[in-house]
Amino acid sequence: MTDSRGPRIREIPAGEDRERLVCPDCGFIAYENPKIVVGSVCRWDERILLCRRAIEPRIGFWTLPAGYLELHESTQAGAIREAFEEATARIAIDGLLAVYDVPHISQVQLMYRAHLLSPDITPGIESLEVGLFAWDEIPWTELAFPSVEWALHHFHDGLITGDWTPRGNPSGLGPEER
Amino acid sequence: MTDSRGPRIREIPAGEDRERLVCPDCGFIAYENPKIVVGSVCRWDERILLCRRAIEPRIGFWTLPAGYLELHESTQAGAIREAFEEATARIAIDGLLAVYDVPHISQVQLMYRAHLLSPDITPGIESLEVGLFAWDEIPWTELAFPSVEWALHHFHDGLITGDWTPRGNPSGLGPEER
Repeated sequence: MTDSRGPRIREIPAGEDRERLVCPDCGFIAYENPKIVVGSVCRWDERILLCRRAIEPRIGFWTLPAGYLELHESTQAGAIREAFEEATARIAIDGLLAVYDVPHISQVQLMYRAHLLSPDITPGIESLEVGLFAWDEIPWTELAFPSVEWALHHFHDGLITGDWTPRGNPSGLGPEER
Repeated sequence: MTDSRGPRIREIPAGEDRERLVCPDCGFIAYENPKIVVGSVCRWDERILLCRRAIEPRIGFWTLPAGYLELHESTQAGAIREAFEEATARIAIDGLLAVYDVPHISQVQLMYRAHLLSPDITPGIESLEVGLFAWDEIPWTELAFPSVEWALHHFHDGLITGDWTPRGNPSGLGPEER
């Protein structure tokens, strides 16, 4: 869409309690909902799969394979699909790693822990480069998003402690600080 | 909206790989995403809060306080809001109880465990009746949705075992069977 068509007027429809995006041409009300991002921290032995982004936002920075859940898709199936799309990685899910709230962009992220079924990976269309990184090789200063760093640390904590209780946002960070 | 306006034609837009809902009047593409439901199992001593639905679907059946996450809302804030909207219940969140995939209706449900800050509850506009139920008083045959039963059992298991590791869908139930 462009800005000049489609739902683009903010008003409170009759019978509602908050503003919605309405199309002045056809009257359609576009209900906006938070989006679900599904992804994974995938290991091969002691190494972790990262993908360098070929798309905005944060093009050129490293991320975990993750993306929007599709309709009629389970969250685990979505995480498996994203790993394949971004790195042609075939993975198996080991459990839920973390649930992150990112309300300022209306996202909820479900991150799984997983292992690669083979070390054969190649960049998908949304990746410039993919790689398997040992812990001390991770490009910490070139990570795409805060939640990538959270997930890597939560995964590492789990490996060390054996406690795989799913994590949430790092404590001490309120919604406004993220 | 009615069926006669707004996005209503299914076609694959240029550059995309799957059908989207497009408005033939203005060209707007309505991207459809799975929705996030947030809710809670709220206790007051040994009793659990249930609400009898005043709205479709499943009007007249009992449910846990839950509903769609709003934009720019954290999942815990959404669960707290829903308990207040449906039962004027003031609650505090104790942790994540479960994540349920319901792909046939494109929902992901995040259910929290919580406790009431006071036993003062009254039906909100979406509830016919609200109540605090001991385990052996729960109206099992009049529950609104399968996930309500799952969450009640997962909560009860946690109370008995002390293990609050978040649960997923009951094992043995594939997406097609739910």
